[in-house]
Amino acid sequence: MNITLAQAEKIISVAKEKSIAIDTKMNIAIVDAGANLVAFGRMDGAWLGSLDISIKKAKTARYFDMNTGIIGELSQPGGALYNIEHSNNGLITFPGGVPIKNAAGEIIGAIGVSGSSVENDHAVAEAGASAI
Amino acid sequence: MNITLAQAEKIISVAKEKSIAIDTKMNIAIVDAGANLVAFGRMDGAWLGSLDISIKKAKTARYFDMNTGIIGELSQPGGALYNIEHSNNGLITFPGGVPIKNAAGEIIGAIGVSGSSVENDHAVAEAGASAI
Amino acid sequence: MNITLAQAEKIISVAKEKSIAIDTKMNIAIVDAGANLVAFGRMDGAWLGSLDISIKKAKTARYFDMNTGIIGELSQPGGALYNIEHSNNGLITFPGGVPIKNAAGEIIGAIGVSGSSVENDHAVAEAGASAI
Amino acid sequence: MNITLAQAEKIISVAKEKSIAIDTKMNIAIVDAGANLVAFGRMDGAWLGSLDISIKKAKTARYFDMNTGIIGELSQPGGALYNIEHSNNGLITFPGGVPIKNAAGEIIGAIGVSGSSVENDHAVAEAGASAI
Repeated sequence: MNITLAQAEKIISVAKEKSIAIDTKMNIAIVDAGANLVAFGRMDGAWLGSLDISIKKAKTARYFDMNTGIIGELSQPGGALYNIEHSNNGLITFPGGVPIKNAAGEIIGAIGVSGSSVENDHAVAEAGASAI
Repeated sequence: MNITLAQAEKIISVAKEKSIAIDTKMNIAIVDAGANLVAFGRMDGAWLGSLDISIKKAKTARYFDMNTGIIGELSQPGGALYNIEHSNNGLITFPGGVPIKNAAGEIIGAIGVSGSSVENDHAVAEAGASAI
Repeated sequence: MNITLAQAEKIISVAKEKSIAIDTKMNIAIVDAGANLVAFGRMDGAWLGSLDISIKKAKTARYFDMNTGIIGELSQPGGALYNIEHSNNGLITFPGGVPIKNAAGEIIGAIGVSGSSVENDHAVAEAGASAI
Repeated sequence: MNITLAQAEKIISVAKEKSIAIDTKMNIAIVDAGANLVAFGRMDGAWLGSLDISIKKAKTARYFDMNTGIIGELSQPGGALYNIEHSNNGLITFPGGVPIKNAAGEIIGAIGVSGSSVENDHAVAEAGASAI
């Protein structure tokens, strides 16, 4: 099972609405089950540096099938996965990346959001992932 | 002047319609005046390898403010720009990348399309670039 | 549909037999439908430089769902896809990469072989791809 | 002395058995004495992001001829090898990488395992390294 472009565009649309609702400007990236980009949108005025971060968050969430923030808890100094960020051409392990599941609960892709606080990034990612 | 996300999404929508009309499956990338990705869409079943190519075509078109195919004519063996593809982390210099201009004729971004023959790629890119 | 590890190991086993039968030493790489490595084997004494080439051939074959040699014909100076090799962190476009299909004809991955002449590389890749 | 492909395949086979015995899905990479990949297998459903990590663990273990976890203890903030992970195109320094020795005690390669907790990763790597 793999996410479709129509699903990815729906998710980006919902994520944009959420982003506007909380007064933020986001980069929003969607990857498929193979961790390859399916759709992307950068809202006007969003941070340029968040472009790459949003894509890396989406990839990271699919690479390990979990929210990126969970990995970040384990990759701290002294943690079990310290410096895991050096793998896969760079991971982003703070919140804002969330797996996307279909109705059957299978992971079909992931969303990565970047452009505000990590709390806001995560909230927008959750809103997007819940849209299908 | 810079392309907006709304404009980029409009361009992708028109490019998708053109792609369907000529029975192809495309990766479509839009970059802004700073050559940074604004929006992207990969149609279901489009070649995976065209993902990176579409983004590189869009960047290449904006890097030099001309259609990618023109650069490709100059980058041949013996040509004035031989192997220019080695710069900028990789250029793509065959057709499918086209600058996007506003009503005043100013370049505000570029579109890159990949997924079929270079003739089809260019036709879809032109259709998209003409949408605004 | 995606290739399984058991299928990939079967393919490598058959490719090794073919390689021995024609007195060559090969690097053999198998990627899945997402172009990610599933299995790999380097025969004793095979060229070290062919390690990366075999992986890139497998990825290239899946990126464009065709034999790598076909792309190489189009990427020559003056060809439609000249210097496409600069995309996707490096393609290999001479023979030795072949898509892998299931019984229903769906592409589920690809094999890349490197270590001898391109004719031998392709023959071993074909033998492997035909094993399932 | 260098590991053979037959030895590497034997090690992967034993590592897979161990992985199944403890109910995990692993990426398993074997490098030779030159730190170059010899064999690799990704079990069905194993994390995609662990592909690169398993290879980096195997390379790291051979680069320094010790278990990766030992390096990780020295690479912490304030430690003697702080941020050594930036070298060699990225090291992974948490457990799961183990040198492979022949009967004479000479190091002939290394195994890297990734896909579960670092304790499980290390247990599977140890089982593999002990297979010859």
